[in-house]
Amino acid sequence: MKEILVIGAGRSTQFLIEYLEKYASQEDWHITVADKDPELARSRISGERSRAIPLDINEKTMLSAWISKADLVVSMLPAHLHIYVAKLCLQHKVNLCTASYLTDELKALDQEVKNAGLTFLNEIGLDPGIDHMSAMKLIHQIQSDGGYIREFESFTGGLLAPQSENPPWRYKFTWNPRNVVLAGQGGAVKFIQNGLYKFIPYHKLFRRTEIIEIDDYGKFEGYANRDSLKYRSVYGLNDVQTMYRGTLRRPGFCRGWDLFVQLGLTDDSYILPDSENMTIRQFINTFLAYNVHDSVEIKLRQYLKIDQDDVDLWEKLESLDLFSDDVIGIPNATPAMVLEHILKRKWTLAESDADMIVMWHKLIYEKEDAVIEVHSSMVSKGMNKAHTAMARTVGLPLAIACRLILYGTIKQTGTILPISAEIYLPILQELEEYGISFQEKVMA
Amino acid sequence: MKEILVIGAGRSTQFLIEYLEKYASQEDWHITVADKDPELARSRISGERSRAIPLDINEKTMLSAWISKADLVVSMLPAHLHIYVAKLCLQHKVNLCTASYLTDELKALDQEVKNAGLTFLNEIGLDPGIDHMSAMKLIHQIQSDGGYIREFESFTGGLLAPQSENPPWRYKFTWNPRNVVLAGQGGAVKFIQNGLYKFIPYHKLFRRTEIIEIDDYGKFEGYANRDSLKYRSVYGLNDVQTMYRGTLRRPGFCRGWDLFVQLGLTDDSYILPDSENMTIRQFINTFLAYNVHDSVEIKLRQYLKIDQDDVDLWEKLESLDLFSDDVIGIPNATPAMVLEHILKRKWTLAESDADMIVMWHKLIYEKEDAVIEVHSSMVSKGMNKAHTAMARTVGLPLAIACRLILYGTIKQTGTILPISAEIYLPILQELEEYGISFQEKVMA
Repeated sequence: MKEILVIGAGRSTQFLIEYLEKYASQEDWHITVADKDPELARSRISGERSRAIPLDINEKTMLSAWISKADLVVSMLPAHLHIYVAKLCLQHKVNLCTASYLTDELKALDQEVKNAGLTFLNEIGLDPGIDHMSAMKLIHQIQSDGGYIREFESFTGGLLAPQSENPPWRYKFTWNPRNVVLAGQGGAVKFIQNGLYKFIPYHKLFRRTEIIEIDDYGKFEGYANRDSLKYRSVYGLNDVQTMYRGTLRRPGFCRGWDLFVQLGLTDDSYILPDSENMTIRQFINTFLAYNVHDSVEIKLRQYLKIDQDDVDLWEKLESLDLFSDDVIGIPNATPAMVLEHILKRKWTLAESDADMIVMWHKLIYEKEDAVIEVHSSMVSKGMNKAHTAMARTVGLPLAIACRLILYGTIKQTGTILPISAEIYLPILQELEEYGISFQEKVMA
Repeated sequence: MKEILVIGAGRSTQFLIEYLEKYASQEDWHITVADKDPELARSRISGERSRAIPLDINEKTMLSAWISKADLVVSMLPAHLHIYVAKLCLQHKVNLCTASYLTDELKALDQEVKNAGLTFLNEIGLDPGIDHMSAMKLIHQIQSDGGYIREFESFTGGLLAPQSENPPWRYKFTWNPRNVVLAGQGGAVKFIQNGLYKFIPYHKLFRRTEIIEIDDYGKFEGYANRDSLKYRSVYGLNDVQTMYRGTLRRPGFCRGWDLFVQLGLTDDSYILPDSENMTIRQFINTFLAYNVHDSVEIKLRQYLKIDQDDVDLWEKLESLDLFSDDVIGIPNATPAMVLEHILKRKWTLAESDADMIVMWHKLIYEKEDAVIEVHSSMVSKGMNKAHTAMARTVGLPLAIACRLILYGTIKQTGTILPISAEIYLPILQELEEYGISFQEKVMA
């Protein structure tokens, strides 16, 4: 009998718990889903081997008690909270899985986790997660085949399925909207291209995009993620000439998003005075120079140099009701919080909307005097608002990893990433059974 | 007999110490100038009532011993170090003066300082310092005359005297170059204009300038300082409709500076790989997209949208040798450190260069149904590199304040700013004797 504790019952737990419940009876597992909101936790479970419990992670005694009973904990909490769970897992000698980026705090526990013979597996969702696993499989294949990898690029996007896409943005939120609003912030973007280091300040990030085409799905644009440089050592490609990881959107999205960045609407560092009673129009005007004669529209056009005939860009703004007199109604809001509110009004999935995950790797390697370029892509579509590809591609690798840890198939200890064959091979193989698979294409 | 301890022997101590020495014999003062570099400290003193001592402020026992012997300490250290000095001053019951912005840490000592009957006077240099004093004098005059102040704007610039100005920048460093490079960073710029809050993100700051003209000196451009809003309460103008504090440059400077901001050259948050062996040209290329066919010049023109015939802007870049193959030679440098290095090569004062301080206030007030606009300006010129207006206008108010505290003319206790008449009236009056005076002009 094994006890699995899932902490946090957010969106991506849906497929995770479904999967675990499928195996629960044959493997003799018991699943406990804990959330501050017990109703939410209850809505995630079905079957007699699962139970939902209320749990406030600030109540450390309760948290500790529940963790002490488990064989494996899955933390679905916001990334900065994993450390509290991790320390209790270490204390009670319990394995841990998360789909979040490994923090320095968690990394620092590595030796202790190893000494305890435990596995704390992180970054085992979609991005990070499937991106690492599929990249490492390709990298190891090429290397064991005698190839020397010169360039590596990788992009992932959480987008809409073509039938649900609408101009002018062709985008809706399929994940945490706040993360989308704040994307790219917190320091210059860093990568290396053909041996040259490249740095992009945040305010230029959305104008430095790359166009990528994927068979049957058309064109996408990619902007760079924060720090690609560190993946040289993570992927064991220390002398790679190009290392670039990015995010995909449909073409034109970034040019529109850049307007928000230029205005300062994505700033999360200060509170707007009286945001509650401000209208959206007043909010926009707050970022434009004072001028008693000109309208907000004219001032914005002039400030951001939007030509009169740049219909596409202007429609992007109008489609969001950016000049409306609607009251914001959120007290003590930062500009980023107000922007999120404005976007949610238009970018929330309708019941029938289907999302789509796109992942694309490009590798260039040398082998016996030949230079070979290979592309590898994965597209996964959701069903509707209730069953998104995003929740599936995050939840499934996590769920499979849980099973493999409980089985003892994953033996690696420490605070680790899914970059060794022991982990990525069985997970990628099983993901294929769920239709999550990569198409490889060798270029001319 | 009174003991004055000056900690730090940087540029602005020159006039401070000269002044104190002038009064030393008649007032029976002894002056101790302490610096990590005893040679620098020695170079500042003359006369038998002064002595120079070596002092490392990390050696807390020594620092404490020297402070315990003083009646007044002047801290000329970098702003974040004042707190260590302040705590020792509190412990040994010694008064303190600084020319730096009052930090929250220092402010928090207010009640303890009051209880000890001490005066910790901050922001008593030029800007902050003379700006506060001259503004408060004007504000109090208008208010006691029955006027209601509706708008307040204030600008200060450390510039070059007209005879030393050269195109295309008409600028050199007359103060800490690092502060110039980092100016405006650390959060959105905030002010209020005609009752409307306005916020400018850093990457737009240098394109949102205002033109100001001062009789006999021509035009200047001003960009906004970080947080003007808090000066509403500091100046007692809580319901003022416009509160805008800014920095002056010669017209065209900000448009040029904006190119550095756009590229990301002012970023101080990360270290460039191998900055020591990088050339200036390679440094610039680091911020431009990879393209094997185009030159750095072409890529920069295109990226920053500099027209072929925008000769002025291009000359600004060329005048700095921005495309040269000179090696940077600074290990572990941030982009901001490299930019400072590049600018210092061209923007360091020659021996004969004279600097110039320009300060300008604009107030609009209502009085008996009339709306009156008054401008008040101060221009102060330096002699040469060794005797700058900057060092004089920072050092003199500080020196006068020291005398007034030791005399007991300044009686106010606590951690304070020079915003009460008890402080600003005698200091402004004495500054006039040194030729630092304001011209008022009532507009139509």
